[in-house]
Amino acid sequence: MYRLDSLERLIGELKKLPGIGPKSAQRMAYHLLGSKPKEVQELLQAIVEAKKRIGSCTICGALAEKDPCPICSDSQRDRTTVCVVEEFRDVMSIEATREYNGLYHVLNGAISPLDGIGPEDIRLRELLERLKPGTIREIIIATDPNVEGEATAMYLARLLQPRRLKVTRLASGLPVGGDLEYADEMTLVSAIEGRREMK
Amino acid sequence: MYRLDSLERLIGELKKLPGIGPKSAQRMAYHLLGSKPKEVQELLQAIVEAKKRIGSCTICGALAEKDPCPICSDSQRDRTTVCVVEEFRDVMSIEATREYNGLYHVLNGAISPLDGIGPEDIRLRELLERLKPGTIREIIIATDPNVEGEATAMYLARLLQPRRLKVTRLASGLPVGGDLEYADEMTLVSAIEGRREMK
Repeated sequence: MYRLDSLERLIGELKKLPGIGPKSAQRMAYHLLGSKPKEVQELLQAIVEAKKRIGSCTICGALAEKDPCPICSDSQRDRTTVCVVEEFRDVMSIEATREYNGLYHVLNGAISPLDGIGPEDIRLRELLERLKPGTIREIIIATDPNVEGEATAMYLARLLQPRRLKVTRLASGLPVGGDLEYADEMTLVSAIEGRREMK
Repeated sequence: MYRLDSLERLIGELKKLPGIGPKSAQRMAYHLLGSKPKEVQELLQAIVEAKKRIGSCTICGALAEKDPCPICSDSQRDRTTVCVVEEFRDVMSIEATREYNGLYHVLNGAISPLDGIGPEDIRLRELLERLKPGTIREIIIATDPNVEGEATAMYLARLLQPRRLKVTRLASGLPVGGDLEYADEMTLVSAIEGRREMK
């Protein structure tokens, strides 16, 4: 059978990317082989540059080109509030709303005993460190509204209980613009439990 | 809003890959940023190597690490038969069946007036060149069974008509292991038209 070792190897490497199966990897490989050297060079350069420039903020754990990150070092930000998220992409999502002006703390994961991820495997210790100076007054827990995110939220809330802190959790309920008919049962339960009085 | 220029650029480059939308590009970028330098290096290396080593066979147009490609230079192959395909990946698909022992000709596309691709934009001239020595006796047209592929097959068949050649087309019909109930109308028409006598 006709084999091209360097093509096989390329497909193998592309398959390691998230969400890329054998067929997509093949398509991507053929695309790269058919692209102009300059185009491929631009992709390679972008990967190398991003790897070189982007690191983690030692305070909040967000990806950043500087340390501390622009958010942690922004004096206009409300330094009394910290929003705790699982991943850096959640920071980007909340920032995109332009609704929040506090700081962040990226856990880099969620507690998941099934995957062998315990409280010591996510950035909880770093969060407790940040509470020491006493400037932080509210912790908004913005972990995902799924099993792991809820477990992490519960654990964190209990951990913070002895401290004089306001601990809040993002509201769960019907997505805006959605349709009640298509909401799953759990979301509907959340929406009923979290119902608010209309004034 | 929080922006990471090198991350934006990387996502932009990844989005240029086929079948990769903004969300997939983002996921891939975060994955790359979270990967060990060695892993990323392996991907980069694989791209660079494949680009460096793989070119096109000047005879059949297939991707190959040598020119002529291993198929064109294989003396065990039946040099009287040429299978005409649209893309290199079709060569790989037919090779995978281990059923065919002739040569190939990759057109690098199909005639598609809507996309501005005419007969002179695909490797038809090169095919006619190959016919000159007179060793080729059968041309199997294996373009895709869609509008462009059929148009290309028709054009090619007419082009070859004056020559003393057997010109065949891959059979269209029900996919093996499929279900008649789920076959579309066009496939069913093809299957009826191409029905064979059982002996």
